[in-house]
Amino acid sequence: MNETMKQLLDRKSVRVFEDKEVAKEIKDNIIEAAIQAPTAGNQMMYTILNITDQDILDKLAESCDHQPFIAQSKMALVFCADYQKWYDTFASVVEAPRMPGVGELLLGCNDALIAAQNAVVAAESYGVGSCYIGDMMERFEYHKELLNLPRYVFPVTLIVFGYPTKQQADRVKPNRFDRKYIVHENGYHQMDNDELREMFEQRASLTPNVPFDFENWVKAFYNRKYNSDFSKEMTRSVNEYIKLFDGK
Amino acid sequence: MNETMKQLLDRKSVRVFEDKEVAKEIKDNIIEAAIQAPTAGNQMMYTILNITDQDILDKLAESCDHQPFIAQSKMALVFCADYQKWYDTFASVVEAPRMPGVGELLLGCNDALIAAQNAVVAAESYGVGSCYIGDMMERFEYHKELLNLPRYVFPVTLIVFGYPTKQQADRVKPNRFDRKYIVHENGYHQMDNDELREMFEQRASLTPNVPFDFENWVKAFYNRKYNSDFSKEMTRSVNEYIKLFDGK
Repeated sequence: MNETMKQLLDRKSVRVFEDKEVAKEIKDNIIEAAIQAPTAGNQMMYTILNITDQDILDKLAESCDHQPFIAQSKMALVFCADYQKWYDTFASVVEAPRMPGVGELLLGCNDALIAAQNAVVAAESYGVGSCYIGDMMERFEYHKELLNLPRYVFPVTLIVFGYPTKQQADRVKPNRFDRKYIVHENGYHQMDNDELREMFEQRASLTPNVPFDFENWVKAFYNRKYNSDFSKEMTRSVNEYIKLFDGK
Repeated sequence: MNETMKQLLDRKSVRVFEDKEVAKEIKDNIIEAAIQAPTAGNQMMYTILNITDQDILDKLAESCDHQPFIAQSKMALVFCADYQKWYDTFASVVEAPRMPGVGELLLGCNDALIAAQNAVVAAESYGVGSCYIGDMMERFEYHKELLNLPRYVFPVTLIVFGYPTKQQADRVKPNRFDRKYIVHENGYHQMDNDELREMFEQRASLTPNVPFDFENWVKAFYNRKYNSDFSKEMTRSVNEYIKLFDGK
């Protein structure tokens, strides 16, 4: 197996960082990897906000579901789907261009997330850990003002970076669901209740020393993750962004 | 510069493939790289449709904006944001779970695209070329039926793979916009008309033998890409998917 493959398979999220800066050259390369990522029609429908102001980082640590480790990171990039620059370009030349719609929003998200993962892979190749913060999509009004986001810019994710502490480096990577549940051939196979339970029990069986009760696990996860305040806030906030891409 | 970085910087889209199969072991590793990608809360809110049926691939080549090279690819994966399996899991245990909203849709897109780019990077490490097909988001009704997609599954991208022909391997990678326009510090900087023109002219200056007229280029691009039928269809189709994630 080649080195790149090994890095892709071994990479896990890092949430506790050493007090060691990421050197400028490495940071530049991480950003360059993002910039060289695939992009639809070479349009680069994204903008990367490089957060170097500790005060803004502290605020994001609070507004992104109260996660203090964000403030301790050594590098923080907000990846935004950006159709603003294209709309403004068209408007500078073409009379009354059509207004951006949700197609532009989603294609911009494609571009932004593809670039984001290139940054994560590049960081890993230098031993720099990373963590995605999906909560960046929450708090529409607050983040728009904090980051000066115009109408057609959507902050789809924040990634924080830094060198992992030994505890983080040694942490066992969480097991994924088995590929037979994730990869379907030629069309989607909707799983019935037995298959769904099997998918969870198979994953749990990979850590045999930890007892697993399907019903209780699902109930707890439902309450902690899906029926939580931050999860409902995410839908509310994303809906506000979507409204702006109404094609009018 | 390390090998992974080199691969990230050099990778370009491949649209003409050698008549050479991707070996099963390599294909398995490409898919495993996707499966091991970062995923919010280890939820894997995506499903990968492995298209092995040539008839379906032929249909996708037509429905994804009439691009015959799709049918010539040696491996084709549809990456879907998938909240169906989570909703069904909750519904099997919890009485009347809340209905998925656009937060779940977008977080699923995050997961799916992060996994997708890992597949692309893994492929590159084996010399296997790839091309993203964003047109997968078009033709809501047709693709839903063709791929048997239930309510909470959104096909956010198709990626086709294969070994590049010599012409494709030798093709010069298109220049990206300069990073000063793509990376903004601490907050979004909305560019004025002069800066926008400068962004395009700077990129054009990297290929000095090709004449560049900003106004004409923008007008042509506007008509060919943004004001095109496929682009309007993308917004129409994505809007239909979004309607399904209405939280009701």
